[in-house]
Amino acid sequence: MSVYWSDGIGEIEPYVPGEQPRDQKYVKLNTNENPYPPSPWVLEAIRKAVDASLRLYPDPSGEALRTTIAAKYFLPRERIFLGNGSDEILAFAFAAFLDHEEPLLHPDISYSFYPVYARFFGLKSRTIAVRPDFSLPVEDFLVPNGGIVIANPNAPTGEFLPLSRIRLLLDYNLAAGRVVIVDEAYVDFGGETASPLVAEYPNLLVVHTLSKSKSLAGLRVGYAFGQEELIAGLERVKSSVNSYTVDRLALAGAAAAFEDEPYYRETRARVMATREWATAELESLGFTVLPSTANFVFVSHRTAKAERIYAELKARGVLVRYFRRPRIDNHLRVSIGTDAEMLVLIEKLKEIL
Amino acid sequence: MSVYWSDGIGEIEPYVPGEQPRDQKYVKLNTNENPYPPSPWVLEAIRKAVDASLRLYPDPSGEALRTTIAAKYFLPRERIFLGNGSDEILAFAFAAFLDHEEPLLHPDISYSFYPVYARFFGLKSRTIAVRPDFSLPVEDFLVPNGGIVIANPNAPTGEFLPLSRIRLLLDYNLAAGRVVIVDEAYVDFGGETASPLVAEYPNLLVVHTLSKSKSLAGLRVGYAFGQEELIAGLERVKSSVNSYTVDRLALAGAAAAFEDEPYYRETRARVMATREWATAELESLGFTVLPSTANFVFVSHRTAKAERIYAELKARGVLVRYFRRPRIDNHLRVSIGTDAEMLVLIEKLKEIL
Repeated sequence: MSVYWSDGIGEIEPYVPGEQPRDQKYVKLNTNENPYPPSPWVLEAIRKAVDASLRLYPDPSGEALRTTIAAKYFLPRERIFLGNGSDEILAFAFAAFLDHEEPLLHPDISYSFYPVYARFFGLKSRTIAVRPDFSLPVEDFLVPNGGIVIANPNAPTGEFLPLSRIRLLLDYNLAAGRVVIVDEAYVDFGGETASPLVAEYPNLLVVHTLSKSKSLAGLRVGYAFGQEELIAGLERVKSSVNSYTVDRLALAGAAAAFEDEPYYRETRARVMATREWATAELESLGFTVLPSTANFVFVSHRTAKAERIYAELKARGVLVRYFRRPRIDNHLRVSIGTDAEMLVLIEKLKEIL
Repeated sequence: MSVYWSDGIGEIEPYVPGEQPRDQKYVKLNTNENPYPPSPWVLEAIRKAVDASLRLYPDPSGEALRTTIAAKYFLPRERIFLGNGSDEILAFAFAAFLDHEEPLLHPDISYSFYPVYARFFGLKSRTIAVRPDFSLPVEDFLVPNGGIVIANPNAPTGEFLPLSRIRLLLDYNLAAGRVVIVDEAYVDFGGETASPLVAEYPNLLVVHTLSKSKSLAGLRVGYAFGQEELIAGLERVKSSVNSYTVDRLALAGAAAAFEDEPYYRETRARVMATREWATAELESLGFTVLPSTANFVFVSHRTAKAERIYAELKARGVLVRYFRRPRIDNHLRVSIGTDAEMLVLIEKLKEIL
């Protein structure tokens, strides 16, 4: 605590991202990065953009990239918003849409940034307990609320909620005049995007990132779909904080990523194939593995404690994610790496168990 | 206004950046970009960083770049904060330090983002009127306050306040336990940075950008100096909004920019030399030109209205900045371009006047 801080800054419990070791010695399965590099086409497009024009501000609304994304998702460009990663878009969306008398709702087991945003912006919020099997009790969300935020697939569980169930949330909140935010950071690994529902639901915001399926976590680009009123709300918040958050190279690389669909289809398929055999291997080692549609699996072991496995894996050079939080403190979230990385994981687990 | 927006979003008056035309037909003297390209060393460093590592998140605290900046400014790395441009750092600083019972103070004629931040974060604020000659009445700030924000050199006026005067603000607010934010976006064009005062004043935050003197507006990097308590406050806000706002390529390019001091010394000198002769030319055309230590001049004409000059310049392919705001609605802010660009400006002005 400091005398110079605003009231409330001392009470913040900041979001803590997974460790980002500065050396290269770890098999890094802790922050859901893609094990495959970005498309060569993307790297080439970025290199071409490295020129004298960097002296100029980027296009603040990213028209060119929005046009590319619009064509890909069959949505008008006006229904797309760009941000510095999906985290920034989520932060803006919390501020823009979720400040109401009724509390915003999010699952108790979900992306741990949600309660941080809510506290930072001083929003009333309430968590909805997921079921013991970590599935989402959709009906429990159908109560007066200031907005609903879910991740689909959910993190860290990997569970995918079918769009028919998401419609229940949208219908309820449409009548109430409240927004539903669907954070689809992991949707490209086997889920189905809710973006086609944007045409039907003026209260739907769908948030995507290039950090996972497009292998571009280092570039900081996210995008969101919503009807014009929601996009305008996000623009207002952005224009109150930082006019240009996506830089010229990020805009160039992101656009190219949407133009190399074959490459990304292939790397996504590889991640999903690895997930399937790694799941079987983990189960044979005594792990319970939740069915996942994401690029990670959420596991717990029949006998060994998660915290001990986490620590012993780290000592052996393998980083996975351990959350010291109620209900999931005996689970581990393991990002899907290359086949070779997963073999190292399995081998080290055999040593430990 | 939308039913889906949070209370308050409809009342936001967003910051409006200068026009960013998507075609190339303008002589662009409206957003204070540097007319010279970034150093070739910077472009090369960025190209080298375009590789498979883009699949990984950037270092969230930017240790390598902070180390480089620390060496340059003779400050420990722990006293440096990085952000997505100085705008993002300013936004974080408003949230982190300026929420108090007493109003934060900023000059009425200054960077027009300050009142936008204050409103967005719901902060009490009060403007201090600059004198008729646009100079800063330092004594008027020495009243109970929730923090002081000034730009030095000031924008859009270009006035530089000597550090001896800034000490008055710092001393007053040190006793009161309040922060002074000195926004030095333009300091490299003839001003003197307050960064050496950080060692003395735990209540001083100095904010810099690479957008102006380093010709990297398109890359989105800013940095700030402050003692550890202030840096920790900024980190808390950042960790409540977006963990990784400076991407890998921006980190690489920014570090290289600090390693090519000769190049930037040369381009800064050119901008300042152009400013001097352009000032003389403008004066000979009947303009009053405020003495500037920035990469722009703030001018008004003896007889012709600023708004008309702005419009007629635009019609002739020259963009300058016109602010439709009280006290300065008969002024123009003209960024310093290349000699050739300024000759076009002078020629078009001769046509118009």
